[in-house]
Amino acid sequence: MEVIRRIGAGVKTRNAAVRVGIGDDCAILKPQPDHELVITTDFCLEGRHFRRDWHTAESAGHRCLTRGLSDVAAMGARPIAAFLSLALPRNFDEEWFAGFMRGFQAVAETHGVELAGGDTAEAPGAEILADVVVVGTIEKRKAMRRVGARVGDGIYCTGTLGGSAAELQALSEGRPWPYGSHPQTFPGACVGVGQALAKRGYATACMDLSDGLSSDLRHLCEASKVRAAIDMSALPLGEGATVEQALHGGEDYQLLFTVMAGVKVPAQLAGVVLTRIGTVLGGDGPMVELVGRGELVAGGWEHL
Amino acid sequence: MEVIRRIGAGVKTRNAAVRVGIGDDCAILKPQPDHELVITTDFCLEGRHFRRDWHTAESAGHRCLTRGLSDVAAMGARPIAAFLSLALPRNFDEEWFAGFMRGFQAVAETHGVELAGGDTAEAPGAEILADVVVVGTIEKRKAMRRVGARVGDGIYCTGTLGGSAAELQALSEGRPWPYGSHPQTFPGACVGVGQALAKRGYATACMDLSDGLSSDLRHLCEASKVRAAIDMSALPLGEGATVEQALHGGEDYQLLFTVMAGVKVPAQLAGVVLTRIGTVLGGDGPMVELVGRGELVAGGWEHL
Repeated sequence: MEVIRRIGAGVKTRNAAVRVGIGDDCAILKPQPDHELVITTDFCLEGRHFRRDWHTAESAGHRCLTRGLSDVAAMGARPIAAFLSLALPRNFDEEWFAGFMRGFQAVAETHGVELAGGDTAEAPGAEILADVVVVGTIEKRKAMRRVGARVGDGIYCTGTLGGSAAELQALSEGRPWPYGSHPQTFPGACVGVGQALAKRGYATACMDLSDGLSSDLRHLCEASKVRAAIDMSALPLGEGATVEQALHGGEDYQLLFTVMAGVKVPAQLAGVVLTRIGTVLGGDGPMVELVGRGELVAGGWEHL
Repeated sequence: MEVIRRIGAGVKTRNAAVRVGIGDDCAILKPQPDHELVITTDFCLEGRHFRRDWHTAESAGHRCLTRGLSDVAAMGARPIAAFLSLALPRNFDEEWFAGFMRGFQAVAETHGVELAGGDTAEAPGAEILADVVVVGTIEKRKAMRRVGARVGDGIYCTGTLGGSAAELQALSEGRPWPYGSHPQTFPGACVGVGQALAKRGYATACMDLSDGLSSDLRHLCEASKVRAAIDMSALPLGEGATVEQALHGGEDYQLLFTVMAGVKVPAQLAGVVLTRIGTVLGGDGPMVELVGRGELVAGGWEHL
């Protein structure tokens, strides 16, 4: 298919772990000795994950790959390969496709990820449909998981929160976005800081913030069978973001992680600011409590 | 999301190579020492790859996983894990979803493949959208590829051809399908014979037949930089299939492979019939020539 050839021709980034990329029935990956592979797959559907009237083609391609990279980053793994399934409506806009691939490939290049395969089809409806797979590698048993947070652990996040929701709101209202960073249209993936965290080994649990802090933290608590308190006054707000957006807005693609009490966490890691935003709780009560600084001391809350 | 929980709850088949499956940011796979991993991804879109009025839910789920397994089989690898991204329209039919998963899981069980992750979303349109990833494992450097066919090699296929197109035609015309096997609605994947071929090491090139012999053979020829002649009288026809359907019909999911002249190929391997159907040619001319038995002797055609 013509589109596959053009995708294949556009692959500029190679990764030594990919022995055979696009062009055969499967890609062939060479795992490093004593390493495990992590794999994630994410839809990127027009109307659900992006809108052509809000997101440029470059932004849609950038976001598509970033979504998968963020999951690999949350495990602490190094991304090596991506696979892109892309269905375009009949008579699709060639310019749009080229822009999407530019956005996708620019992120692949930044992270040294090889586009190693995928599939193409004519979309059955009017919407552009994409599904992205990202594969990463990490030393055996070093991957961070959602399971592992313990009562008393500090809860931390990377970077700032809420900026993605704030930029999205500006887009939806047709307001200009006055800031230099674009957390909604061109979010970063925490690939460097994720690997640094896994290497240091002090995160007891980790996940990425894609749905929003309040609901993602719930998933971490469910997996680790604990509760959590978040100090609303401690949240590192992104430019233009409200506390509400930092708590409930999605697509920040920062990391949420827990660290055993007493372990000293640096203010920055791999160039990214780390902020303590809460504490892991035990016992009964709501799974996620939202409090102001110091409010929960009696119930197990430690001053931050 | 409720659907993810239900997919996760339905996972009955485990594979020792999957250390962490559904429920974390990524699945974690443990590669065997001295093995490589093969990865393929395939869309399975309503209206393109199946139709709800022709295919039952079980058939759609069966076909979705089989499509990916067939690519892994073509490399000669052993499938270990699958990932399913599934988008369902709002107010989708619960019964249909359950049937789809039954069909998918039955194939997974047959081949010992663990459903290790995926994604779910609400479909933007009225069509059901699926994308399946299958991961396989194979000893280092043992994978069969499309590259490698040489002038004079015999061209072989597994099983029979054209049955899938024949059953599809019956479905489209509302005619009953009088045969016991269902190559269109419940095709098999050549996982066992693919592994046996790779172990024996005598296939110089291999691919799966998904688009149809005439176009797939063209891809193999392009990759190997050779030409090919097919003996139409030698094609092993599926039940109810015409020579035309065997040549151009898709979705047979048999393997197409080449073997060096002089190497004795058994009549059956892993319980599957192997049939010589042509010869690899060099020089100039059409990439794929269709001939009757013996017609091409002067031009390099050897009697079969």
